[in-house]
Amino acid sequence: MKQHNLKAVLGICAGLAAGAVIAIGAALPGATAQSDAESGSAIETQDISLDQAMAALAAAREKSEELGVAMNIAVVDAGANLKAFARMDGAWRGSIDISIKKARTSRLFDMPTGAIGELSQPGGPLYQIEVSNEGLITFPGGVPIEGADGVVIGAIGVSGSTVEDDHEVAVAGAEAVTGG
Amino acid sequence: MKQHNLKAVLGICAGLAAGAVIAIGAALPGATAQSDAESGSAIETQDISLDQAMAALAAAREKSEELGVAMNIAVVDAGANLKAFARMDGAWRGSIDISIKKARTSRLFDMPTGAIGELSQPGGPLYQIEVSNEGLITFPGGVPIEGADGVVIGAIGVSGSTVEDDHEVAVAGAEAVTGG
Amino acid sequence: MKQHNLKAVLGICAGLAAGAVIAIGAALPGATAQSDAESGSAIETQDISLDQAMAALAAAREKSEELGVAMNIAVVDAGANLKAFARMDGAWRGSIDISIKKARTSRLFDMPTGAIGELSQPGGPLYQIEVSNEGLITFPGGVPIEGADGVVIGAIGVSGSTVEDDHEVAVAGAEAVTGG
Amino acid sequence: MKQHNLKAVLGICAGLAAGAVIAIGAALPGATAQSDAESGSAIETQDISLDQAMAALAAAREKSEELGVAMNIAVVDAGANLKAFARMDGAWRGSIDISIKKARTSRLFDMPTGAIGELSQPGGPLYQIEVSNEGLITFPGGVPIEGADGVVIGAIGVSGSTVEDDHEVAVAGAEAVTGG
Repeated sequence: MKQHNLKAVLGICAGLAAGAVIAIGAALPGATAQSDAESGSAIETQDISLDQAMAALAAAREKSEELGVAMNIAVVDAGANLKAFARMDGAWRGSIDISIKKARTSRLFDMPTGAIGELSQPGGPLYQIEVSNEGLITFPGGVPIEGADGVVIGAIGVSGSTVEDDHEVAVAGAEAVTGG
Repeated sequence: MKQHNLKAVLGICAGLAAGAVIAIGAALPGATAQSDAESGSAIETQDISLDQAMAALAAAREKSEELGVAMNIAVVDAGANLKAFARMDGAWRGSIDISIKKARTSRLFDMPTGAIGELSQPGGPLYQIEVSNEGLITFPGGVPIEGADGVVIGAIGVSGSTVEDDHEVAVAGAEAVTGG
Repeated sequence: MKQHNLKAVLGICAGLAAGAVIAIGAALPGATAQSDAESGSAIETQDISLDQAMAALAAAREKSEELGVAMNIAVVDAGANLKAFARMDGAWRGSIDISIKKARTSRLFDMPTGAIGELSQPGGPLYQIEVSNEGLITFPGGVPIEGADGVVIGAIGVSGSTVEDDHEVAVAGAEAVTGG
Repeated sequence: MKQHNLKAVLGICAGLAAGAVIAIGAALPGATAQSDAESGSAIETQDISLDQAMAALAAAREKSEELGVAMNIAVVDAGANLKAFARMDGAWRGSIDISIKKARTSRLFDMPTGAIGELSQPGGPLYQIEVSNEGLITFPGGVPIEGADGVVIGAIGVSGSTVEDDHEVAVAGAEAVTGG
């Protein structure tokens, strides 16, 4: 049901973004947790492991080398806290913070960062959302990482090239873990 | 009367904002307080109680469940300071800060957050107001809460779904208290 | 094992105030997670539910009323993000931030806040740790909340009276959930 | 030669700090660079590579596992900017920021963090230095990393256990690179 709502939101995005294909299997732990909560027990959930995070970094780095770009790559855990990070030699220093903010932003809203950016334009429903959470980055380059059953266990953020490259590298990193 | 004051304000805004249509049912408590102040005595005022704030949370949570969405719900007092907060299971982590900022923004200006957002667009009279006050959120989801005689005693901010849902849930929370 | 470690820490805390020496080799949930990580799978864990958080708030509020004090009470989740909050009527506004920081601090290090404060004194091993994490509060009033099997699923922070009262109320709130 | 400079600094400190024993194997790159600068040419310098940073992370992680502790490990470059980071499963979330601040602090002053902490005590010559640079951490766990000829090319910061363990792990990480 929540997923349904998200699709409505993204439907708007799709209209604005002219062809951007956004796959959010979304994975919001709320639904099943709800029933647990009623019984007074804690929510059973998952979190990314360091080995998974390092695998994501390695895959993203490999993709970056393939593209011939120097990236900052950040991975956050289920709580949106930094789990692993690597800056490739020669990558922009200004992208350290951006890659971390992209990863955080993606987990904070369980969607690719670019999807938020489409909604935060002047006249859009989330205009200026970037001032929240001590700074969000809402252009492409951050994507959620999912666990075996579609639960979001973290996110990866990449910054250092064009937003298209950033997004492609982030997806490569996430895919090394998603479903694992 | 408060509504009258707001309309005066918005009349000016409308002129500046070139056609922006803003419907606000909100209010500025200044007028009556002023005369008390002139007599040298302190301002008689009202503030939201915790019981009222918890009633607003409960009503907002109930409306959220009715809509099938997972929300962050924040209530601030007359001083725009946090009074009560609840994050439903599965709700976006990024909406914690946004819901609090919506509540704060609404009380800081005694109007629904969306009304400010219409004035803060590029070319608008309040362009970039979001960078003030350590970050305002100016899209819908924050509404004032009024006491028995129309005095603003606090505000509620909701974030976690579309801005339409956010606003609807915020109104449901406020109505559980307004006039009470 | 985790529970055991935590209890060891808390045993020392119990001796509080008396310049106790605290050995933190402590309370690291990593050991069991490690083997999961080697297999490349995500870490199975738990998070506090809103119903649990509200139960903690209610128990803390009841204890506060029993003591005749007005408290700010904050609950954070497993990721140290705000889950629920209530400020009792008449409670210090300055304690809003302190209660939230206490809850955060307690989860950030999985121990009662006062235990850190003993180590951060001049000449102590963690002197000035308070400047980290955008501000820690290291005096008593924050305690971890554990799930059914001793996993830390969140924390509660209380501020508004003496640190002894704050700690007592926090413990009352945590006990309403711990083990549940 | 750099060691010589530091000893001069510390000689002064020692007088002021009344018996503080400071062991620093660190270095200031200024001396040799100075003559180059006089000729109008740029400063020849060195910076840590990502491969070196990852080697430091791996060595620190191995040492942590040997000690049975879960650490946050951060490496900064010659510009004191984050180069690589890893949080072991189960490591304290509060140590993310501390490990990064330790690495930064160590490179900002080209000495082990603990050496600064001895000077920043009440009555000491650097009292309250921790509030500078958006927060320094001045207890042990951060050490400089040197290149082939003793030039500081970065630093490593470790947090997650006792300060003794933190320091030991940081040294293990630095030694995997220093001189390399």
